[in-house]
Amino acid sequence: MNLKISGIGYYLPEYIETSEELAPKINKSIDWINTLTGVVERRVSDIDVDLMGAKASKLALKDEVPDLILNASGVGKQVIPDTSVFIQKELGFKGIPSFTVHSTCLSFLVALHTAANFISQGSYKKILIVSADRGTRGRNFNEPESAALLGDAAAAILVEKALDNEGSSMLDFTMNTYPEGSHLTEVRGGGTNLHPHDEETNFADNLFSMNGPMIYKMARKTVYNQIQIDLKNNNLKVDDINLVIPHQASGLAIKAYSKYGGFKEDKVMNILAKTGNCVAASLPLALAIAYEENRIKRGDLIYFIGTGAGLSVASCLLRY
Amino acid sequence: MNLKISGIGYYLPEYIETSEELAPKINKSIDWINTLTGVVERRVSDIDVDLMGAKASKLALKDEVPDLILNASGVGKQVIPDTSVFIQKELGFKGIPSFTVHSTCLSFLVALHTAANFISQGSYKKILIVSADRGTRGRNFNEPESAALLGDAAAAILVEKALDNEGSSMLDFTMNTYPEGSHLTEVRGGGTNLHPHDEETNFADNLFSMNGPMIYKMARKTVYNQIQIDLKNNNLKVDDINLVIPHQASGLAIKAYSKYGGFKEDKVMNILAKTGNCVAASLPLALAIAYEENRIKRGDLIYFIGTGAGLSVASCLLRY
Repeated sequence: MNLKISGIGYYLPEYIETSEELAPKINKSIDWINTLTGVVERRVSDIDVDLMGAKASKLALKDEVPDLILNASGVGKQVIPDTSVFIQKELGFKGIPSFTVHSTCLSFLVALHTAANFISQGSYKKILIVSADRGTRGRNFNEPESAALLGDAAAAILVEKALDNEGSSMLDFTMNTYPEGSHLTEVRGGGTNLHPHDEETNFADNLFSMNGPMIYKMARKTVYNQIQIDLKNNNLKVDDINLVIPHQASGLAIKAYSKYGGFKEDKVMNILAKTGNCVAASLPLALAIAYEENRIKRGDLIYFIGTGAGLSVASCLLRY
Repeated sequence: MNLKISGIGYYLPEYIETSEELAPKINKSIDWINTLTGVVERRVSDIDVDLMGAKASKLALKDEVPDLILNASGVGKQVIPDTSVFIQKELGFKGIPSFTVHSTCLSFLVALHTAANFISQGSYKKILIVSADRGTRGRNFNEPESAALLGDAAAAILVEKALDNEGSSMLDFTMNTYPEGSHLTEVRGGGTNLHPHDEETNFADNLFSMNGPMIYKMARKTVYNQIQIDLKNNNLKVDDINLVIPHQASGLAIKAYSKYGGFKEDKVMNILAKTGNCVAASLPLALAIAYEENRIKRGDLIYFIGTGAGLSVASCLLRY
């Protein structure tokens, strides 16, 4: 499907929380944090997701006005309305159709695929996709691994139709959801099940919970198989991919793409040490930083891949 | 866009709460409830949204297996994973891509439009769209009007490509979001803004809040204009529409489609008295009941229209 990314922006909160600062909160050593999670520092935001998303969006939009705003974040500002409304409000627009696409850490990829369908069909012409997450709001300091992994960030892209000679397109998109892993990554509260007012809702239900080792065990083989299928279906070899942009789930997960996936380490974006796992914002943030560092140019083949709560696995081949 | 609804199902919880039962809880008379809101009885569910959605889905699917599951509900089961995962789990499937499309009461229409794009592009072949809402979980008995309006329900449809001679298609879809109305319909809690653990989060922040009169004032003119634009753009007269299926926002809102919109009252689906405002489930529930009552047949022109938190207005013309 014809699709061109015509604008990219990101926002990182100013405040840097080092592992030194975090260590006493989770009762672990600096070395434990840095080695086990791969996250050396993470950002902590004092502004909410709508404002974070709007800051990234302004950089992606420049002077453009989108005809659709897709919020593709992991956790919303509030239960209703959905966060896209508040992002539009912060951008000072009105009347632009806005809604949310949600599949936790994979929200950005799902929104990108949805946008490609919209653009190819002519349903919309310029789509703003925004991922803004403030995972530090949901950290459970009694669960040291996930508490050390999470960081805050926002990133946004503008997509539109490519001109005939540009060749930008989405070559492939695949997603699979395995509900047997639904309890491996959760915030159990905040909805109709464990409502904040329910007596049985406990403190941890309103916080992020993750079973890292089990996810890794369940995901590794599935992700490995997905890579082989994607390469085969598109007649590609590992070396044809210019850049792999994985979800920044954990140090171990990112390293697996080179260790088992066959990609050279310098071709796999790894921004985890300085930003942590930014939930849905990780994928577009890694894209934005790759763009800023001149690691991608028009015509490059980018391979997005990742896992998300569900457990879902998704991958996307993009001719940039 | 080529699109055929090939399966429809709904689930209404067994328990019926009459206005007589509700009246003392909200300190209003039965007559006040029935006259002001138009809701005489509403269902209250003791099972959660995923199970409700799965019950409706089984009726829509019969023996079919979808290749995409779209949750299009107003409020999720929990913050993460998104509810589509839990619906797939209840259906006993695995590996089917699943995600959520969220724009509160308009989620179903947005999902239907998204599905039409996917089907037309060939991205997916059989898409299950599920709207399941348990609005009674968020009722604020200190806000009598919205507490009397809300009811629980789930509805689901299966969509796929129409055969050439069937003519089923989506003729038009329009959505506009006006963030100036973002505070008119809210559940302010449950996200990153007013987290359940925040001291400043109060009891009402975790409950549904609605300014009915202001929404009506803001929406009436916008909705009226939208109807005129849709008719004009598609060269249609009011009488060409076989059935209007509006979001069941309130008695006043539904009556406005005949009073101001120009549609004959018997051509406007009104199920409000017996089911209330079921948030995102209202639109597909009204469709499912119209289908059950033989009020729609292949080739009919159906006009969906409604407002949702945002404030958003959306409309959709469907050749059934």
